[in-house]
Amino acid sequence: MKALVLSSGGLDSTTALAMAVKEHGKEHVTALCISYGQKHDKELKAARRVAEYYEVESIYLDLAKIFKYSDSSLLKQSDEEIPKESYKVQQDGREGKPVSTYVPFRNGLFLSSAASIAQSKGCEIIYYGAHRDDAAGNAYPDCSEAFNKAMKEAIYIGTGNEIKVVGPFVDKTKADIVKLGLELGVPYEFTWSCYEGGEHPCGVCGTCRDRAEAFRLNGIKDPLEG
Amino acid sequence: MKALVLSSGGLDSTTALAMAVKEHGKEHVTALCISYGQKHDKELKAARRVAEYYEVESIYLDLAKIFKYSDSSLLKQSDEEIPKESYKVQQDGREGKPVSTYVPFRNGLFLSSAASIAQSKGCEIIYYGAHRDDAAGNAYPDCSEAFNKAMKEAIYIGTGNEIKVVGPFVDKTKADIVKLGLELGVPYEFTWSCYEGGEHPCGVCGTCRDRAEAFRLNGIKDPLEG
Repeated sequence: MKALVLSSGGLDSTTALAMAVKEHGKEHVTALCISYGQKHDKELKAARRVAEYYEVESIYLDLAKIFKYSDSSLLKQSDEEIPKESYKVQQDGREGKPVSTYVPFRNGLFLSSAASIAQSKGCEIIYYGAHRDDAAGNAYPDCSEAFNKAMKEAIYIGTGNEIKVVGPFVDKTKADIVKLGLELGVPYEFTWSCYEGGEHPCGVCGTCRDRAEAFRLNGIKDPLEG
Repeated sequence: MKALVLSSGGLDSTTALAMAVKEHGKEHVTALCISYGQKHDKELKAARRVAEYYEVESIYLDLAKIFKYSDSSLLKQSDEEIPKESYKVQQDGREGKPVSTYVPFRNGLFLSSAASIAQSKGCEIIYYGAHRDDAAGNAYPDCSEAFNKAMKEAIYIGTGNEIKVVGPFVDKTKADIVKLGLELGVPYEFTWSCYEGGEHPCGVCGTCRDRAEAFRLNGIKDPLEG
């Protein structure tokens, strides 16, 4: 069975890629790497490096045109700074509204693109790395379990019952993911999580804080830390 | 309230556009016209003409890159001829599989793109023209009521309960749509349904046959007929 993996070059999707390679074999896995107009291309370079490491076919897709009307702070066209606090702090006072780094229905588009390409290429299964922490407090509504459930169903039905979506981490924390990834030997030194595009991770954006905490809870140091 | 309409230049979506303009006023309506690598651009020209007629803002989006791996007979890269029979005849012997003009998860991508752009532009509602005939016998699984229900839910949840999808024709036939459109004064002479890109509709592809039947059942002649 052939599998397609949504690969962003980050910690979660790289762990999902490792799982897919172990389960299906590298010759049956395709990594789909999507740019969406983000402020830097460090993630895509990381995704490329990871695909090379696992020796899987990779496809690059640019969806920036779809997101050009958005003012998400993650995107090139926005002057807004990326917040330097944890998601929990960012959520305070937003009354359950998404955080400023939310990109409108991005995961819906990523999964729809993956479904279409998977069906065209004869893949029957899609892996992606959404997890519990991203959905907390509705920071990213397109990461919630309820969204994932509805989207999985839409994809299964809409492709004529051909394509299954697997979100192995939907009920897991980032620390759980790192634990599994360490067992699988994931090369976390090649991954990139920081929202900024500096030489080294900034250490203070929401995703840097989450990543550091996930390694700390596993009692080890992030290989990207100097 | 602002609305976004998925507009293909065809009969169904043009009727949906007419409904949206009547309900919300032309200054609150945006038409989203998507090309996806189809063999000709007659539909997009029709969509442009229709948007001009209704004096609504229009956005053009090219998603051909996503569909370039597909061998659908509707797409440029396919040498396969577009079938010259009704959908019912095409379905015989396919055991519920999609017809050759099915484009993988196209409606999922159209609706996801619409959801993202609607949210970026402050529209709260999306109209689109899926109807009962297209879903019959699973010819187009991404037109079925079950797909529409799941996709609507994914979009509502995934946008943080901001975007509602309205498929006013999901339980209607094409003849019902024409009946409504005639009441609304839809300029069907500007629309284009035929899968071929000739000067006049071919009259024999599945969608030409459906269109002719829809007008016949309303006791009038298609204005595109010579």
